[in-house]
Amino acid sequence: MKLLRYGPKGSEKPALLDASGVIRDLSGIIDDVAGVALSPEGLARIAALDPATLPALPDGRIGACVGAVGKFICVGLNYADHARETGKAPPDEPILFMKATTAINGPNDPVEIPRGSKKADWEVELGVVIGSRAKYVSEADALAHVAGYCLVNDVSERAFQSERGGQWTKGKSHDTFGPIGPWLVTADEIADPQNLGLWLDVDGVRRQTGNTNTMIFSVAHLVSHISQFMTLEPGDVIATGTPPGVGMGIKPEPIFLREGQVMTLGIDGLGSQRQVTIAAGA
Amino acid sequence: MKLLRYGPKGSEKPALLDASGVIRDLSGIIDDVAGVALSPEGLARIAALDPATLPALPDGRIGACVGAVGKFICVGLNYADHARETGKAPPDEPILFMKATTAINGPNDPVEIPRGSKKADWEVELGVVIGSRAKYVSEADALAHVAGYCLVNDVSERAFQSERGGQWTKGKSHDTFGPIGPWLVTADEIADPQNLGLWLDVDGVRRQTGNTNTMIFSVAHLVSHISQFMTLEPGDVIATGTPPGVGMGIKPEPIFLREGQVMTLGIDGLGSQRQVTIAAGA
Repeated sequence: MKLLRYGPKGSEKPALLDASGVIRDLSGIIDDVAGVALSPEGLARIAALDPATLPALPDGRIGACVGAVGKFICVGLNYADHARETGKAPPDEPILFMKATTAINGPNDPVEIPRGSKKADWEVELGVVIGSRAKYVSEADALAHVAGYCLVNDVSERAFQSERGGQWTKGKSHDTFGPIGPWLVTADEIADPQNLGLWLDVDGVRRQTGNTNTMIFSVAHLVSHISQFMTLEPGDVIATGTPPGVGMGIKPEPIFLREGQVMTLGIDGLGSQRQVTIAAGA
Repeated sequence: MKLLRYGPKGSEKPALLDASGVIRDLSGIIDDVAGVALSPEGLARIAALDPATLPALPDGRIGACVGAVGKFICVGLNYADHARETGKAPPDEPILFMKATTAINGPNDPVEIPRGSKKADWEVELGVVIGSRAKYVSEADALAHVAGYCLVNDVSERAFQSERGGQWTKGKSHDTFGPIGPWLVTADEIADPQNLGLWLDVDGVRRQTGNTNTMIFSVAHLVSHISQFMTLEPGDVIATGTPPGVGMGIKPEPIFLREGQVMTLGIDGLGSQRQVTIAAGA
């Protein structure tokens, strides 16, 4: 299944994308694509519906594909070739940091360039959406706690991330820095999360190309590892790191985002996003 | 006013503490001590009530004093003397990191020692509770966005924080590592947030003694600074850093928490907390 959230920001309705690409209203069935609706039982209930019985919705804004996200957890340097381009050694264990949940945005909404930003950058990433509580879970059991997958752009301000006091969250948390979606694709539809192609273009120029088969730490490893340090809950989102090709890694000179550019990105089976960059709002 | 949340974990009711120390049920008035109830208008509505008209509640568990916390933002090394005890130079600007919101706990609930932990540590801190949205606010305007203050124990696992991959969130996010409360004391009752004594004992031995007048960055500065990097929303909590006396700073040898110990801590005007340390649950 492909689940999504449809309508104006802050008042999205739950919906699903049917096999013919029509958006169907789920608001008579669940309150939101969030929390308990993402549990195995919640997803089974939606899967049992005949989509043709749900109201079709006209084209309109698609929001972040998960609502009420409690934690937006990110993994740093999780592709060996991306670690290399940053000049850092591959980590011995996953590097974890948090993005503010207020950064979450629809997949095609504008992305703000923060005031004073000179190093705004892009990061296409595989997002993992948690479906059931996970604390101290083994790698073998980890994927049973995953509701599904989605596309994430982990937009980053490199100066804020690394030159403003030492913890990365400062460069990861600006409003609009977390486009998520268009769909949450349930785990049953992703045969192998470790074999998905990813790509990202800026103004039509291919900047990132990768495959999750070059991750240093697999999705199962990450879910297990994170669950040793904090309890994962339904609706938590994990951004699993980015493949090579970010702006700060471009030779001979890094390239960063400015207002009026367009990012397009996608992952096999998870759809695509398109964001125009704009000045930060108040 | 002193606002609190009362009842079993996960189903707390909103309440207030009246002038004679009786807990009064607010659940007929507001849904939770959270979100819009913390806005200037929301607080004014509660302040207009006669507490004697609200049902008195018997003694019982007190929960975290804020519900539905969206972001739990922490400031590192914000007391000059604490920075010294860690062996680090005082920062040029606030160090920000995040605690998982799942770490939030009642003020007197047990604190878990994580599996494999050898360096669990304490940190008494002044908590700031946001009452209205703040993005790019000036230092002069910052305190207008503060609903009130509370006591926080920013429990930390130093090995997880600093020896497990480089970002502090790993050592800050274990379940129960964020006792908050007992009360949210509204800002009108705190004449000067930069002149509050703080203390923390472990097993009756005084370990931390400090005053917010030795903060490197004031509350107003912190709110303004954070709002340059992310949007603060009602119910967000900022833990503003800890004074000297944490376990890792004790000479000649650091002292860390083990199971079966008792932390007691307090801040002038904000009440006190008491936590017994226990083994981590599944």
